[in-house]
Amino acid sequence: MDIENAYITLPKGFIANGVHAGLKPNGNPDLAYIGSDRPAQIAGVYTSNLVKGHSLTRSISLIKSHDSMRGILINSGNANACVGADGENDATAMAEKAASLLGVSADEILTASTGVIGSRLPLDKITSAIPGLIGNASSSEECGHLAERAIMTTDTQPKEVAATVSIFGKEITIAAIAKGSGMIHPNLATMISVFTTDANISQAVLQEMISDNVKDTYNRVSVDGDTSVCDMVVIFANGASETPEIKKGSEEYDTFKEAFHALCFDLAKMIASDGEGASKLVEVEVVGAKTPKDAYLCVLSICRSPLCKTAIFGQDANCGRFITALGYSGADIDPDKISMFLSGLPVYEKGVALPFDEDVAKEKLSEHDILIRIELNDGEYNDRMWTCDFTYDYVKINASYRS
Amino acid sequence: MDIENAYITLPKGFIANGVHAGLKPNGNPDLAYIGSDRPAQIAGVYTSNLVKGHSLTRSISLIKSHDSMRGILINSGNANACVGADGENDATAMAEKAASLLGVSADEILTASTGVIGSRLPLDKITSAIPGLIGNASSSEECGHLAERAIMTTDTQPKEVAATVSIFGKEITIAAIAKGSGMIHPNLATMISVFTTDANISQAVLQEMISDNVKDTYNRVSVDGDTSVCDMVVIFANGASETPEIKKGSEEYDTFKEAFHALCFDLAKMIASDGEGASKLVEVEVVGAKTPKDAYLCVLSICRSPLCKTAIFGQDANCGRFITALGYSGADIDPDKISMFLSGLPVYEKGVALPFDEDVAKEKLSEHDILIRIELNDGEYNDRMWTCDFTYDYVKINASYRS
Repeated sequence: MDIENAYITLPKGFIANGVHAGLKPNGNPDLAYIGSDRPAQIAGVYTSNLVKGHSLTRSISLIKSHDSMRGILINSGNANACVGADGENDATAMAEKAASLLGVSADEILTASTGVIGSRLPLDKITSAIPGLIGNASSSEECGHLAERAIMTTDTQPKEVAATVSIFGKEITIAAIAKGSGMIHPNLATMISVFTTDANISQAVLQEMISDNVKDTYNRVSVDGDTSVCDMVVIFANGASETPEIKKGSEEYDTFKEAFHALCFDLAKMIASDGEGASKLVEVEVVGAKTPKDAYLCVLSICRSPLCKTAIFGQDANCGRFITALGYSGADIDPDKISMFLSGLPVYEKGVALPFDEDVAKEKLSEHDILIRIELNDGEYNDRMWTCDFTYDYVKINASYRS
Repeated sequence: MDIENAYITLPKGFIANGVHAGLKPNGNPDLAYIGSDRPAQIAGVYTSNLVKGHSLTRSISLIKSHDSMRGILINSGNANACVGADGENDATAMAEKAASLLGVSADEILTASTGVIGSRLPLDKITSAIPGLIGNASSSEECGHLAERAIMTTDTQPKEVAATVSIFGKEITIAAIAKGSGMIHPNLATMISVFTTDANISQAVLQEMISDNVKDTYNRVSVDGDTSVCDMVVIFANGASETPEIKKGSEEYDTFKEAFHALCFDLAKMIASDGEGASKLVEVEVVGAKTPKDAYLCVLSICRSPLCKTAIFGQDANCGRFITALGYSGADIDPDKISMFLSGLPVYEKGVALPFDEDVAKEKLSEHDILIRIELNDGEYNDRMWTCDFTYDYVKINASYRS
């Protein structure tokens, strides 16, 4: 069951907090901690970019060699990337400071950083802020929301979701937060997102589940075609619900996975909808492809096309641009079999543009949620992806990001 | 030798003209004719988009089955694409009308169309305008410039180049025009461009030469990553210079090819520089890649990245975005070996961001011409590509293209 007022500390045994350490010039929270009162099984997926931030590579390496973690420190305002050996040392120093206050090992504290690439972390500011961050962390609603505030960069909306499921006769909670909202493109995970749950489930089962769940959710969101160097989705499962273990192949497994998947799905759509400068959420659905790859190439090509995305911003039913994007997608398609629907309005049929009422099209395109449906009529494979429109504000945000 | 005041009718034996047939609402010329007073050997390269405009498919098919042509009709304002069998008939009808006035076969007149996709050509307007277009066509400078004006769409600058070379002791002229300026991306040809020359050279030799010449010129320009359905580059060689034939492998061949290549190069840069909404011309140079493909993937990834292109618009030396684009390019690179220079200023060395003077960087980025040099230090292969920045005006132009 979805929880309306969601925050990351809803599952039992989790605390969190967010403070302003001084990385964001505007005084907003920029340092978050999310932790469990006991070791939590951990799993994650990460950016496929060959260049990876130092905080991220540290976390990847820790998750590889440990099955449980106690918490994660996340800073915004600086990606801690491309600065050499200093970056690795800084990430470790952050974790050590928090770990000493928590009375745990630094190897039990993950690190993540998001923001400008190529500048060293202001480590003094961060270590000075950590005592307040950790000391005041709690399971309260306020602290939960503060953690989300602290990981946001150009996001305009916080992204927090949670749900409960009944497993073994007990209520289990899953909660998650995410930050977007530029440099978003499907190549494994594409943003920073943290899940917490009080479910009792092993790392191996969690890992398989998260890898599977991101495929048609996080990996089906594109804002601008750029894949960042800091992206990760991690899940902490601390077993505080005190149920038996959720085993692969069981009914409980299916119930938990379904709820987890639904939250991934909700967050993915929220990220697309809050893409940098976005005024619209665009769902692109391709049906009838020869192979899964052809279906994927088609949705990807439209979601990546500046011409399609500016047309949607301009509320211009310029179907030729969508057909053009399919034509150069690299997918094996037959142009003469393609049909297209714009939020239900037929605009293109079997390779030929249809006459349509421009006023009706304009009305459809004035909605916030736009559905582009492409029928390839050439096979049985489908795919879908979410993106947003391309606006003046995207240019504005990204022309002045560092300043 | 480059000719300063270039126009398409400079080579002997060519005429041209441009008129307003009524396709562009603003009254600008929108229908062009370029023709030779005798059969001209013909060669061309075309878009790789699976969806192709009807005027273009007609031309491709004619060039396949004929070694010479008399001329080409080009309209702007309508792409004559995705309208079904009517589109093919309309292209043929245009050519027939011109051919009957010229006293040649319709199969000797190529057709090309550029503009909005999915609307039928206003054939009446075009056929009504053709008598004036053909009747007043001449080799004059004015008529030459009018032909270029008539093929422009969102171009802000006409693109006309010409050069002379001395071959067999005679002066041979090559001239060319092009239109950009959106939907420009390397996949064979990426715009409409017409070359004329009075050289004596066969179709087979010309075809090989043009295919080779576009590789590092037209195929190294990206404005927005979209590849259009109407793109073509064609060359007419009418032999009016009355020299012996230029044979493959000869010294004359090398001289001619070099001049032809230089014009392709100039036009490619003009197209990038006049990309939709562009305020800057950006050259991206990658050296030291393991393979040619790795070098290409690197230049392509940067030229396609909205984040890199908005940073350049904002004159922001955000080198992290360029390194990020290399990391997700798909190229086999070693992040720890990458160095980067911004118009000569070292900003990144062997995987680590360098401190640099922001004022100096700002000054470099305030120039119109920007050079991004990436040293991969991992092999011996290089590549280069041109693009432009991503601006408010790109969004403005493309959000309202049809209206």
